[in-house]
Amino acid sequence: MESHYVLSLLLRRAREDDVPAIVAMLADDPLGAQREGDPGDERYLAAFERIDADPYNELIVAERDGKVVGTMQLTYLAGLSRLGAERCQIEAVRVAAPERGRGLGRKMIQWAVDRARARGCAMVQLTSDRSRTDAHRFYDSLGFTASHVGYKLRLD
Amino acid sequence: MESHYVLSLLLRRAREDDVPAIVAMLADDPLGAQREGDPGDERYLAAFERIDADPYNELIVAERDGKVVGTMQLTYLAGLSRLGAERCQIEAVRVAAPERGRGLGRKMIQWAVDRARARGCAMVQLTSDRSRTDAHRFYDSLGFTASHVGYKLRLD
Repeated sequence: MESHYVLSLLLRRAREDDVPAIVAMLADDPLGAQREGDPGDERYLAAFERIDADPYNELIVAERDGKVVGTMQLTYLAGLSRLGAERCQIEAVRVAAPERGRGLGRKMIQWAVDRARARGCAMVQLTSDRSRTDAHRFYDSLGFTASHVGYKLRLD
Repeated sequence: MESHYVLSLLLRRAREDDVPAIVAMLADDPLGAQREGDPGDERYLAAFERIDADPYNELIVAERDGKVVGTMQLTYLAGLSRLGAERCQIEAVRVAAPERGRGLGRKMIQWAVDRARARGCAMVQLTSDRSRTDAHRFYDSLGFTASHVGYKLRLD
């Protein structure tokens, strides 16, 4: 039943034992496939611990029927700009392959926006690779403005 | 003398008494003018204190001959992506009006990139408003790739 389907969705902070499922989603992606390693690599666990201990950082998972089916990371950025406003930055948004096209990504982003608003953030921001044109339509439809150019400089 | 001029430049973490000078630079900008308030507003000081206490956040000033002439903010972002790599995000880059066009911005960004590399960051990232075309040429010339679209959703 659709009503049960919706009700069984849970968004929550990730736990250590979610890390392999999160890494698997990061890797199951046209861009991510080239840059991720073994989900059991201890560097993933070290990064999880750093995020988990940081009061301004939240690694989130979407869980449906006990299974992790989505992830995103929220960082609450302080800054002097705009009268010292806090911003919420969303990164590493992924939906598990069997769940794609069913509205889960939309629910996740709306949840993140609501969470940022409840915290008093003045803005939600994210960047999306130029090649992800489906994602661009998705963020446009959620009311985001493509006002910026995102620059990256790889050091490795 | 040019040699003295260069040698007198100091990049360092901001102190509380730098806040008014930083806010003045944020406001002295075509976009910033519309969104900043009185440099003495206590919300700026509260934001400074939050940044200063955060081990993953650095508010930087450029000082020449004892005067603050530039600012930028560096945030070290944890994430699971790319084997748990840390990224350095640069925000709120400003150069005081009398210093513009003299290479200070370039020195600041190169310093930030060196600092990120020394820390072991895998990437430096930033976004720039689409209207700042001079800034885009500047970041291109520093080796950055305009690979992403930057989305913002204002909540205020």
